[in-house]
Amino acid sequence: QNDRPGRIILPMDTRYRCWETFMVVMVAYSAWVYPFEIAFMNATPKGGLFIADSIIDAFFATDIILTFFLAYIDSRTQILVRDRRKIAVRYLSTWFIMDLASTIPFAGLGYLITGRVKAGVSYSLLGMFRLWRLRKVKQFFTRLEKDIRFSYFWIRCARLLFVTFFLVHCAGCLYYLLADRYPHQGKTWIGSVMPNFREDDLGMRYIASIYWSISTMTTVGYGDLHAVNTREMIFNIFYMLCNLGLTAYLIGNMTNLVVEGTRRTMEFRNSIQVASNFVCRNHLPPRLREQILAYMCLRFKAETLNQQHLMDQLPKSICKNICQHLFLPTVKEVYLFKGVSRETLLFLVTNMKAEYLPPREDVIMQNEAPEDVYIIVSGEVEIVYSENETDQVVGGLRTGDIFGEISALSNRPQSFTFRTRTLSQLLRLKQNTLQEVLQTKQADGIVIMKNFLKHQ
Amino acid sequence: QNDRPGRIILPMDTRYRCWETFMVVMVAYSAWVYPFEIAFMNATPKGGLFIADSIIDAFFATDIILTFFLAYIDSRTQILVRDRRKIAVRYLSTWFIMDLASTIPFAGLGYLITGRVKAGVSYSLLGMFRLWRLRKVKQFFTRLEKDIRFSYFWIRCARLLFVTFFLVHCAGCLYYLLADRYPHQGKTWIGSVMPNFREDDLGMRYIASIYWSISTMTTVGYGDLHAVNTREMIFNIFYMLCNLGLTAYLIGNMTNLVVEGTRRTMEFRNSIQVASNFVCRNHLPPRLREQILAYMCLRFKAETLNQQHLMDQLPKSICKNICQHLFLPTVKEVYLFKGVSRETLLFLVTNMKAEYLPPREDVIMQNEAPEDVYIIVSGEVEIVYSENETDQVVGGLRTGDIFGEISALSNRPQSFTFRTRTLSQLLRLKQNTLQEVLQTKQADGIVIMKNFLKHQ
Amino acid sequence: QNDRPGRIILPMDTRYRCWETFMVVMVAYSAWVYPFEIAFMNATPKGGLFIADSIIDAFFATDIILTFFLAYIDSRTQILVRDRRKIAVRYLSTWFIMDLASTIPFAGLGYLITGRVKAGVSYSLLGMFRLWRLRKVKQFFTRLEKDIRFSYFWIRCARLLFVTFFLVHCAGCLYYLLADRYPHQGKTWIGSVMPNFREDDLGMRYIASIYWSISTMTTVGYGDLHAVNTREMIFNIFYMLCNLGLTAYLIGNMTNLVVEGTRRTMEFRNSIQVASNFVCRNHLPPRLREQILAYMCLRFKAETLNQQHLMDQLPKSICKNICQHLFLPTVKEVYLFKGVSRETLLFLVTNMKAEYLPPREDVIMQNEAPEDVYIIVSGEVEIVYSENETDQVVGGLRTGDIFGEISALSNRPQSFTFRTRTLSQLLRLKQNTLQEVLQTKQADGIVIMKNFLKHQ
Amino acid sequence: QNDRPGRIILPMDTRYRCWETFMVVMVAYSAWVYPFEIAFMNATPKGGLFIADSIIDAFFATDIILTFFLAYIDSRTQILVRDRRKIAVRYLSTWFIMDLASTIPFAGLGYLITGRVKAGVSYSLLGMFRLWRLRKVKQFFTRLEKDIRFSYFWIRCARLLFVTFFLVHCAGCLYYLLADRYPHQGKTWIGSVMPNFREDDLGMRYIASIYWSISTMTTVGYGDLHAVNTREMIFNIFYMLCNLGLTAYLIGNMTNLVVEGTRRTMEFRNSIQVASNFVCRNHLPPRLREQILAYMCLRFKAETLNQQHLMDQLPKSICKNICQHLFLPTVKEVYLFKGVSRETLLFLVTNMKAEYLPPREDVIMQNEAPEDVYIIVSGEVEIVYSENETDQVVGGLRTGDIFGEISALSNRPQSFTFRTRTLSQLLRLKQNTLQEVLQTKQADGIVIMKNFLKHQ
Repeated sequence: QNDRPGRIILPMDTRYRCWETFMVVMVAYSAWVYPFEIAFMNATPKGGLFIADSIIDAFFATDIILTFFLAYIDSRTQILVRDRRKIAVRYLSTWFIMDLASTIPFAGLGYLITGRVKAGVSYSLLGMFRLWRLRKVKQFFTRLEKDIRFSYFWIRCARLLFVTFFLVHCAGCLYYLLADRYPHQGKTWIGSVMPNFREDDLGMRYIASIYWSISTMTTVGYGDLHAVNTREMIFNIFYMLCNLGLTAYLIGNMTNLVVEGTRRTMEFRNSIQVASNFVCRNHLPPRLREQILAYMCLRFKAETLNQQHLMDQLPKSICKNICQHLFLPTVKEVYLFKGVSRETLLFLVTNMKAEYLPPREDVIMQNEAPEDVYIIVSGEVEIVYSENETDQVVGGLRTGDIFGEISALSNRPQSFTFRTRTLSQLLRLKQNTLQEVLQTKQADGIVIMKNFLKHQ
Repeated sequence: QNDRPGRIILPMDTRYRCWETFMVVMVAYSAWVYPFEIAFMNATPKGGLFIADSIIDAFFATDIILTFFLAYIDSRTQILVRDRRKIAVRYLSTWFIMDLASTIPFAGLGYLITGRVKAGVSYSLLGMFRLWRLRKVKQFFTRLEKDIRFSYFWIRCARLLFVTFFLVHCAGCLYYLLADRYPHQGKTWIGSVMPNFREDDLGMRYIASIYWSISTMTTVGYGDLHAVNTREMIFNIFYMLCNLGLTAYLIGNMTNLVVEGTRRTMEFRNSIQVASNFVCRNHLPPRLREQILAYMCLRFKAETLNQQHLMDQLPKSICKNICQHLFLPTVKEVYLFKGVSRETLLFLVTNMKAEYLPPREDVIMQNEAPEDVYIIVSGEVEIVYSENETDQVVGGLRTGDIFGEISALSNRPQSFTFRTRTLSQLLRLKQNTLQEVLQTKQADGIVIMKNFLKHQ
Repeated sequence: QNDRPGRIILPMDTRYRCWETFMVVMVAYSAWVYPFEIAFMNATPKGGLFIADSIIDAFFATDIILTFFLAYIDSRTQILVRDRRKIAVRYLSTWFIMDLASTIPFAGLGYLITGRVKAGVSYSLLGMFRLWRLRKVKQFFTRLEKDIRFSYFWIRCARLLFVTFFLVHCAGCLYYLLADRYPHQGKTWIGSVMPNFREDDLGMRYIASIYWSISTMTTVGYGDLHAVNTREMIFNIFYMLCNLGLTAYLIGNMTNLVVEGTRRTMEFRNSIQVASNFVCRNHLPPRLREQILAYMCLRFKAETLNQQHLMDQLPKSICKNICQHLFLPTVKEVYLFKGVSRETLLFLVTNMKAEYLPPREDVIMQNEAPEDVYIIVSGEVEIVYSENETDQVVGGLRTGDIFGEISALSNRPQSFTFRTRTLSQLLRLKQNTLQEVLQTKQADGIVIMKNFLKHQ
Repeated sequence: QNDRPGRIILPMDTRYRCWETFMVVMVAYSAWVYPFEIAFMNATPKGGLFIADSIIDAFFATDIILTFFLAYIDSRTQILVRDRRKIAVRYLSTWFIMDLASTIPFAGLGYLITGRVKAGVSYSLLGMFRLWRLRKVKQFFTRLEKDIRFSYFWIRCARLLFVTFFLVHCAGCLYYLLADRYPHQGKTWIGSVMPNFREDDLGMRYIASIYWSISTMTTVGYGDLHAVNTREMIFNIFYMLCNLGLTAYLIGNMTNLVVEGTRRTMEFRNSIQVASNFVCRNHLPPRLREQILAYMCLRFKAETLNQQHLMDQLPKSICKNICQHLFLPTVKEVYLFKGVSRETLLFLVTNMKAEYLPPREDVIMQNEAPEDVYIIVSGEVEIVYSENETDQVVGGLRTGDIFGEISALSNRPQSFTFRTRTLSQLLRLKQNTLQEVLQTKQADGIVIMKNFLKHQ
């Protein structure tokens, strides 16, 4: 195999991620400065701006070279491809030409060839290739949106804000350009309120443009600055149409985020409402009422506790591994299963259901028929003996203890109520499963019964 | 255990809830008055306002002290922590410093130290710590939203209204501040329509500010009051951008509320539509058509009747308790189960399904094969004998009666149609379950059969 | 029982429905005319308007009397209550007083008592009770929304339009009232563009008010008519805030309707997309591709065909009735089940599944192992014999025919392919169910086997 | 049968589809030009426009004739009807009259009859029948929306844009018409800024109209052009109301599209979030963490891989065909099943579940109890032998290989770990199913066991 990993950049490498983020900042600057130069500087930046532009172009050239060393994931086999030749072929056949076109300094090239500095329309148009770089910003936001370390709400807002800013800025610059090039200075949107605006301060002119742009975009439309000649009207028609779409898009996105953001609260309300109605309608006793509401609250306060839904989605082989990892250490230490073969333990573990219970829930009620056996993974459980309506705590159980097994193995009603003291995670094992093990795996069955009898 | 509950405040204590609500009113007042003082009073409130501010600061200081006595729920164990030391450590390590900073009267402190009354920019900025208090309002609304005693729609509207009002008020005050501090009085937004506005009535100036603020916020933008100088334009740009977000957020929330509000009506319509189409397409007889539509209507009119969905979410131990509480008293009194052991009754009860039926539904049809046994929990059922297409009511059943058992135990077709007279809650027991009991619990089986034969 | 149905009005009576609709038209007129009279007529309508108002009041008085005869449905038992006394008690204890207050002609009463015609503020305020009548419009729309004969989209639009119109009308009238009562005629919103507006044509003034009202409401805000004095500014502030809420509410509703309206198209697209992707990825042969896509299209073109989902919601007793009604006549006529007892037929029918298939689907493939038996309820099926890749139609089946039974009863592979010719509804019966019947019901089993052998 | 297919046009014929698309372009032109001619040309187009109108009318006449030859799908039987007579009857009884009315050149007809060219109001109104043609555009978009080859987002946007453009254009033309016909030229919306506007350039007037129209529609409302006389105010009132609805509709649609567009990203985030929380809370080892996250990512990257959901929707007969087509060729070649009868193979294939696994997932763990047998359909699997915590790759498996069968048939724990190397598609067969086959189909069972023993 001829892939030399030393010369290859991995896409998830932290240093490359930093470089990517830095490039996005460059793109943002470059997207801001380009329309500004066209409109307010006659497309010929001077001094600092010119140097900055050249440096950025150099960075983009570097990025193109780096891409030839960037490993990628093959979509068919889902394997990381590190072969430099495949990487190069893939890049050359996709975005290479556009990346190159957006980086070539056409004006400089033109000067080298023709020997003259010229700021014609053709260079301005060729400069529009630079907007291709915005693709990087899009990719950056798309990646962040899928990264669960960041809030989806704020990433999405930032994305929309960037789009809005960029549109407002472009529209402001273009609108100024229209006024600047119009032959009759007084018959322009800015000239009608600031005669001789061309002599005014650059900042003032820029702010007036942006002010108009944003007051049109947000549909405030004070009317203090408005289109005067036909050319401006045409521009305005397209800008307003475009804004209509953008505003709808912004609202659509916000609605989506709000819906997502309040979904859980709504579900919580509906769920509690149903439970509360149920309790009221049936005049359930306060003790039961508390238990039901506490459980419903727990479900939402700690939704992540509900792991069943996740397990259902995973393939069987992974689920088995998880169960084995999570519950085997606890189950192995339970007195009943000491000395039992690993195979039987694995069978038991994969047939258990994990349940979370809030404090003060009755897990098993006194005098109930035997049905399930519970093992405590975390939390505490009280043993309560009820007589004549008074409850008396006769003991406590902790992690690694088992309860309900006496009743299940001797097939008699439960002698105690078992009640959680704190938030507890319990493993529930059906009596049937236990009995199946006792019958099918005879060696282990004898061990279990010996353990049981010894413990009494 | 060293927790003295007498000295501890419980977060669900009614008196503490009242105090919290009162503090929210204080915060609201404080948030309104602070920008107003800065803009219209040169940051130095006089007379009544000054006294009110001082009183509120005193209340906030009290609240900080109270928080040291406020029990909290530990997120890991879900248990209420009442240990004063843990409470203090938790508070000091989280919000204490910010709470303190928002309460210290910096201006008074400055006067004590420097001996001079000074209304500088630094005090205005330090005063911005007071906006930290708004966190209390947020918490208040978040809590109310989860409280099912209040309508989610109105709580959410109130929250949005509060945010809108606050933003409008702040923007109005700030915009006036800009005009007030501008050197050239005539070249300001307010000065261009009211020359010598500084001499005008305070109320008039405030209303003009709010009028401008809200007409920009709602994007009406009449244009009678508009930005005149560059400074105002810059402020306006940010305000409009901010409004764009707020408007989208308002609409998003309203959409969410409307969707939630009309969900049930839509489901009802879809459900009835499906049933109605089904009936029409298959030319079902009017009697069956009525039954189907009545049942579908009942499902939505009284959605809360559907308790199955809730039961599915609760852990098994709670479900058992509920069934036992709801149905055992009824089942115990059924003639067939008189004298049966409690264990068997519990087994039967947990294997029954509760069903609600609207009036005039056929539960069992004459000549049907035996399948289910029904026990009436509430409502009334008619016994109907059909011959030659005419129905004749031959009897009625009430709460505690059982029907279908003759057919189920003797394994013969039903001799009567059983039809509900009013809205009825029935318990459905499968024939199989009943026969399983007869076979496995022999003592109880004999009791049941004796009861059955005696009753004939 | 003392209910005399002749004297009772049923709420679903067509004549009463007409009366209700007529009353809604009256309310709409009354809600429109009341603010208009206050603003433009100094609260003293003359001539035609006065007579119309009086007639409407008479109608409302009649409606109050009718309500004492109107039966209602009791929410607990779901039974229609026709007892006049209960009806009266219920009405008197709920809305009677408000209904009465909205109908009493206070001005006329005042004239009778004091002997003077007076149009004071107090009468205007008492007149506001009339807006209580709008409750009828709300109820009317709520009822229509639940009526599946009308499109939800248009009912909802009409409701929103009514609310919008009413608000616009009220705001226009109130705004005019403010200008009309302002001491300085020129310093009002209307006076600043139409000096001496009080002498102008009534229609012109009304249209100008509505024009301002709606241009503010839709946030267009041209600015040609705008608030001039502080009083108008305050009114405007509240109106704009109110509009913000209304606009958000309108958009929220529209979004909800659009989502509902396009839901089916989206589901169709997603569904077809998934099927299409699946077919392409797996390079399925064109014949299978066609069958899959045709089936997916059918599911959405004729969603109502899918009756399984509805059946799942209905209680078991109703489902049985439906199956019996729909399929028993067909199954009874199938040659295999001629002479079989009704009980066995019912058992078979309730264990069958109805399936709809588009034209040209293979139901059973030649050489397949026996598994299901199909009965044709509607449509046509071809019998195809394949040899050397060529298909030859050897027969056709129609409503009432059964196929797959030869293979199922003799336990041999299928000898033919069965393919639908048109859209067909088939009943699927599992081989197991059939064999269960043959074994458990021996008499019927012999009949079936005899029928089968005779038919060969 | 008398259908001559040579003379019939099939609706899915490519040439007819092109013709339909061409007609939609014609309709769009015709809808644009008609209001323009009415407003700016006094309803009497000259020269090129007149000729273009005539040509389009000719095309529409052709389309009417073509419709008589167009086959259609019968909604009851889902079969294509090709009988010319039925087609004609169906068309004549539905849309024929309206289509005709929208095509008759009333003005030309009037000239022929009366011998005079007259541009009266009656002809303008009769011309409104042409708007009926827009139905074709609606149908066109509805069809495209259901076509999965096009993006729903862009089709929907195009549709909304078309509606918006059309409304803006109509409103602009009508508003100009109002000004043009108003007696007092200076007291119109356009006359108050451009005195003598009737002498101005046609393009300039049109652009001013559209500028006003769109600035009102988007609620910008600069106020530079605004209603002056009452007639214009009334028009404006209706236009603004209409826009309110349209804007809400646009936003509603956009929200719907955004929600649909981001749905998958949100689901991905939620899903990963849940998995990530689960892993963190339970301190799972890094190896297991990787496996879980890789699997969750795969599920969303390649959602189309999940074919189970689709299979559940299809009827059983189609599912069987698919399984047979997809898996039989692979299963037939597995060494274990060589020489097994086709019937048994089909039984095995329909009882297998297809699973996709990302690279580096453990499918079977060493020492696990035997449970499932896997067949590789695509991808590669490594055989790993673990001892003392070190993994050693001892072999590789490819398409057509089977693993887990040794353990399953000899009922001993697995001797190796099987781990995927690339994205793999596996068929999972339960041990129970395999054993059922061995017992019930004895001949095939012997073949399988022979294969198994020979292979060892």
